[in-house]
Amino acid sequence: MAALFRASRNLLLGWTKHHALVSSRSMASKTPVGFVGLGNMGTPMAKNLLKNGYPVIATDVFPESRKELQDTGAQVVDSPADVAEKADRIITMLPSSPNVIEVYTGPNGILKKVKKGTLLIDSSTIDPAVSKEMAVAAEKMGAVFMDAPVSGGVGAASMGKLTFMVGGVEQEYNAAQELLTCMGANVVYCGQVGTGQAAKICNNMLLAIGMIGTAETMNLGIRLGLDPKLLAKILNMSSGRCWSSDTYNPVPGVMEGVPSANSYQGGFGTTLMAKDLGLAQNTATNTKTTIPLGSLAHQIYRVMCARGYANKDFSSVFQFLREEEGQTPRLTTLRKQDVGSPDAFKNLRIFF
Amino acid sequence: MAALFRASRNLLLGWTKHHALVSSRSMASKTPVGFVGLGNMGTPMAKNLLKNGYPVIATDVFPESRKELQDTGAQVVDSPADVAEKADRIITMLPSSPNVIEVYTGPNGILKKVKKGTLLIDSSTIDPAVSKEMAVAAEKMGAVFMDAPVSGGVGAASMGKLTFMVGGVEQEYNAAQELLTCMGANVVYCGQVGTGQAAKICNNMLLAIGMIGTAETMNLGIRLGLDPKLLAKILNMSSGRCWSSDTYNPVPGVMEGVPSANSYQGGFGTTLMAKDLGLAQNTATNTKTTIPLGSLAHQIYRVMCARGYANKDFSSVFQFLREEEGQTPRLTTLRKQDVGSPDAFKNLRIFF
Amino acid sequence: MAALFRASRNLLLGWTKHHALVSSRSMASKTPVGFVGLGNMGTPMAKNLLKNGYPVIATDVFPESRKELQDTGAQVVDSPADVAEKADRIITMLPSSPNVIEVYTGPNGILKKVKKGTLLIDSSTIDPAVSKEMAVAAEKMGAVFMDAPVSGGVGAASMGKLTFMVGGVEQEYNAAQELLTCMGANVVYCGQVGTGQAAKICNNMLLAIGMIGTAETMNLGIRLGLDPKLLAKILNMSSGRCWSSDTYNPVPGVMEGVPSANSYQGGFGTTLMAKDLGLAQNTATNTKTTIPLGSLAHQIYRVMCARGYANKDFSSVFQFLREEEGQTPRLTTLRKQDVGSPDAFKNLRIFF
Amino acid sequence: MAALFRASRNLLLGWTKHHALVSSRSMASKTPVGFVGLGNMGTPMAKNLLKNGYPVIATDVFPESRKELQDTGAQVVDSPADVAEKADRIITMLPSSPNVIEVYTGPNGILKKVKKGTLLIDSSTIDPAVSKEMAVAAEKMGAVFMDAPVSGGVGAASMGKLTFMVGGVEQEYNAAQELLTCMGANVVYCGQVGTGQAAKICNNMLLAIGMIGTAETMNLGIRLGLDPKLLAKILNMSSGRCWSSDTYNPVPGVMEGVPSANSYQGGFGTTLMAKDLGLAQNTATNTKTTIPLGSLAHQIYRVMCARGYANKDFSSVFQFLREEEGQTPRLTTLRKQDVGSPDAFKNLRIFF
Repeated sequence: MAALFRASRNLLLGWTKHHALVSSRSMASKTPVGFVGLGNMGTPMAKNLLKNGYPVIATDVFPESRKELQDTGAQVVDSPADVAEKADRIITMLPSSPNVIEVYTGPNGILKKVKKGTLLIDSSTIDPAVSKEMAVAAEKMGAVFMDAPVSGGVGAASMGKLTFMVGGVEQEYNAAQELLTCMGANVVYCGQVGTGQAAKICNNMLLAIGMIGTAETMNLGIRLGLDPKLLAKILNMSSGRCWSSDTYNPVPGVMEGVPSANSYQGGFGTTLMAKDLGLAQNTATNTKTTIPLGSLAHQIYRVMCARGYANKDFSSVFQFLREEEGQTPRLTTLRKQDVGSPDAFKNLRIFF
Repeated sequence: MAALFRASRNLLLGWTKHHALVSSRSMASKTPVGFVGLGNMGTPMAKNLLKNGYPVIATDVFPESRKELQDTGAQVVDSPADVAEKADRIITMLPSSPNVIEVYTGPNGILKKVKKGTLLIDSSTIDPAVSKEMAVAAEKMGAVFMDAPVSGGVGAASMGKLTFMVGGVEQEYNAAQELLTCMGANVVYCGQVGTGQAAKICNNMLLAIGMIGTAETMNLGIRLGLDPKLLAKILNMSSGRCWSSDTYNPVPGVMEGVPSANSYQGGFGTTLMAKDLGLAQNTATNTKTTIPLGSLAHQIYRVMCARGYANKDFSSVFQFLREEEGQTPRLTTLRKQDVGSPDAFKNLRIFF
Repeated sequence: MAALFRASRNLLLGWTKHHALVSSRSMASKTPVGFVGLGNMGTPMAKNLLKNGYPVIATDVFPESRKELQDTGAQVVDSPADVAEKADRIITMLPSSPNVIEVYTGPNGILKKVKKGTLLIDSSTIDPAVSKEMAVAAEKMGAVFMDAPVSGGVGAASMGKLTFMVGGVEQEYNAAQELLTCMGANVVYCGQVGTGQAAKICNNMLLAIGMIGTAETMNLGIRLGLDPKLLAKILNMSSGRCWSSDTYNPVPGVMEGVPSANSYQGGFGTTLMAKDLGLAQNTATNTKTTIPLGSLAHQIYRVMCARGYANKDFSSVFQFLREEEGQTPRLTTLRKQDVGSPDAFKNLRIFF
Repeated sequence: MAALFRASRNLLLGWTKHHALVSSRSMASKTPVGFVGLGNMGTPMAKNLLKNGYPVIATDVFPESRKELQDTGAQVVDSPADVAEKADRIITMLPSSPNVIEVYTGPNGILKKVKKGTLLIDSSTIDPAVSKEMAVAAEKMGAVFMDAPVSGGVGAASMGKLTFMVGGVEQEYNAAQELLTCMGANVVYCGQVGTGQAAKICNNMLLAIGMIGTAETMNLGIRLGLDPKLLAKILNMSSGRCWSSDTYNPVPGVMEGVPSANSYQGGFGTTLMAKDLGLAQNTATNTKTTIPLGSLAHQIYRVMCARGYANKDFSSVFQFLREEEGQTPRLTTLRKQDVGSPDAFKNLRIFF
């Protein structure tokens, strides 16, 4: 296992010694890097490139975002096409598939003016099928497209501690890695274009399943008389163990330093999880893959968004599933309240 | 429909020609009838027996319930055992399986003093396995037990318009029917002991599935731009048609005279539906039967009970599943809110 | 019910008296009609246009399909663009969204040579979002696009008995209806572009839910001792009633003339249902709509496709969910077989 | 892990300092121990008591099982009541709740002849509510009942490496532990009576959810182009990590020494998992706890039992969910096969 892991570590992360293989493009380090998409994630990422000595040529639809980056030393231009004119390495960080399509293939898109040999790295989290489309479109223009979605959130983006999952032509991986290591602590090569997205989507789907499963298991155990801390301990030394039970337990009082200890504030929002599960659902549907639990997890996070949990951490599913105080009438009150309708619908033949 | 129903009623029940089979017990009509369980359902049922000229000997755990029936002309005694001493036809109407077990086999239960040949009719909605157990216990004492759960609610109970689904020995069906027709408009013979419960449980499970299905379909259609009334009309002339779409539509504004037109008040409460789905779930689990949608419907009504819908009509699932106004941030605001945590959990290696 | 239906029929389908509103294009009846997509559905549809006296100008990717229609009297051309050059009313019938996009917007697509004022009717079953995109693209060229998916299958297509659900600009509905009534018995106007697709998707989703629900309910009832015919009758006079229980019952022996009476041959294939549920899933995901039962129904039909049910009628879900003969060990054999592993995995700390 | 485990063992069980509390009964070690239930699990457990020097007085319904243990040195008697007459510490190991009820409270049951102060330890996996009932019944006779279900399977039973999860009065825990450590490597005190069962049920429910989740995630990733070993590695260093992904991966070729490497033979059978999920489902239903994923996991293992997977390891869900070779027609063949019925059901108004 240790040997296997070492090997994989080289395979996945390494190559620092193999600079000889690096393409001429990435050799020319410290030449300008383009950046499109200066939102909460993109801005700190671009700043980290600046900190690492790369000239940055950036754009965004919002003038204030452009202004902020200009003040930090970047050159700001009007459109993705303008970025493509001035940089042969470009990073994009956008909220969803339609934005990516627009930024690459729209009328002022990157591909309108992209130079041959340009390296395009998209760090948005989108449908891998769109990543593949972009790669095909880029290739027609003589450019190379890679997908490199991140995990880690705004905090990790600021600290340069993101994890990148990278899909694309293996020969270009080193060139991409040179830039990505300025913004992240881990860079994992996943395979052909789209596999970066695939890895992220798969991880987050299993994460959601594990979290909901942990929430309902803890809830059941508590109702059966188990102490939550003890139950967590038993699960964590047993086959029920998962990241959500041992590292991010959703039950208040079981662990410190996690959102469940802080009213489910911060962390990874339910809306974001619902978005990622939507991507998992779409890719599964489109590839005719059966994902019964992933699909139900998607529906649960979707209904949570509709019921007031949109901005809470996704571990709040524990709270969502738990009986509210005083909500369910007990058996002893069944006589009074739990009966069918009196006269309101008497013309309706009700046969429950 | 009327003709169809008449035909099926004859087919199913066909009692007219079989009066010769009626046991001597039921011939002796207008002898006292015992009644145990004077809740919101049992009280009007017992009153309808009185109205039809049957002396009633009744009991209940609550003194005020006993008092109310005494005031209407019933003889009141202290325990189910006392009822069994004085009546050879007894009807029970209780909230759940444990109550039934207690009333029949407890220390002061019916079977302690039941006379040989007594007809016992249980109208509670309970696990059919418990019905079977009670039948076996009754048979040991020389008595006959039948299950006859009802549909229709308090209004139908008051008006004597309940529907009874009856399970038990066929030869005793006429004797049971004589009493049940005093309290209900329809009496359906379903087969051996427990099948009355089975029929009710099956109907209500399919009802729940149809209702949730209708709610999510209507919701999806509305979001895709369809007018709800038009969509209901299309479904109802097509293969999507079901009772919940054509008779009890859950979308406000589509039909009149149903709970969705009245803020989901009245009707059939979510708690009751959750209880019946719990019975369906238990019988399915115990018979190793796969019920994927019934099982998920159960979970949905269970979580609705936990989230404030306990006392609303079960068609309120439409409201539960629908997006609340202003809850989900739109894509355009993704830049501002839908991002991972900043610094709160920086020691935690988050890899979403 | 009859009255209601008549009323709705007038409302939905009518307008025969309003020919004065018909646009000049459709006035020019018996001018050529274009047809793209001559598969199992498209070919009989195009033939019905010929039978009704319309000259047809058709194309398809398969030469043998073109040949077949040419032999029936149609003029055959090489590409959708060629069709657009010669006809100002065009019907398309294609297997999926990508085909529609290609036929309309591809290099030899309809929109390359479409004439101003042309009426484009797409009868494919696809994502309503794609229908909307096509409508926007058509409008840019001065043409009008409507979606008009069908229900009814190959048999109904041959007999001209299809049902069309039509979405698009209301003023053009009569012009579309003139052609569609040559191929179908019912034409229903659903609203803006995409609502035809929406109506079909919604109906089929609720149909799938009702079918699986009926299958598991019937199965549960049978295992609880109910006669299947009697159970179906009880459901059908009660609130569990749905199209799958009263018109297309999935249990062999309950009804005649349905696929369950014929080894689940014919009817509506599981693969097709899985495809439609995939569309429902995609539209729900993309509109952030919660469809818990629809989503699970999708997964069930997906796993059925993977387990050998792809070409059986979708009511075969009854067979899929039912216990196979002799498959499950009974409790009495638990002692012998249902135990954990002996020595194979002794180094693995198993804690089940 | 070893250190962690030792720490947790002390923390959880902390018995070393409490020897003073040990009851006089357990002090009298090497007095006879009763054993009821000599199946595949019970027999090796009883043999381990013999090996540790305890005289064993045993019984079972099967004569050959009694004979086998007699040959190993145990004294064999005719009924549980007879065991109770001769031993004041009794262990029971039975397949399900009804057996436990019979063995304790039946006409020849333990409680008919149990001596005051007897310690009763039930290692069966059953509904915790039944454990509580047995404890109440035992207390009435002056005896003490504890639940102590095991994990580990036949192999662990033979090697004395079982894990026991123990519920019951804390003062009796040491007495129980003395015996259990002869048969198991880990003994965990969980709380009041029934919590041993609760802990096992909770663990196995989360295990099932994690396993199905891992199976569908791995399947999705593979179909999206990821190498299974690489995907497992990424998940295991990320938040998707769980026991089923890192210790018992269900995909053939990813790990060695697990059932997926051996055609899913051995391990933990699907039937057993379905049984445990049935217990989880029942306890959840009866406590009105919402377990959406647990409930769906239960349905999935139930349908697997019905479809030929009953005796395979529960990780075979990967195989069950995966597309079979050549099963699903591709889009290009849609023209030929995926169409509705021709003439078979022409009298049926089909509106899919």
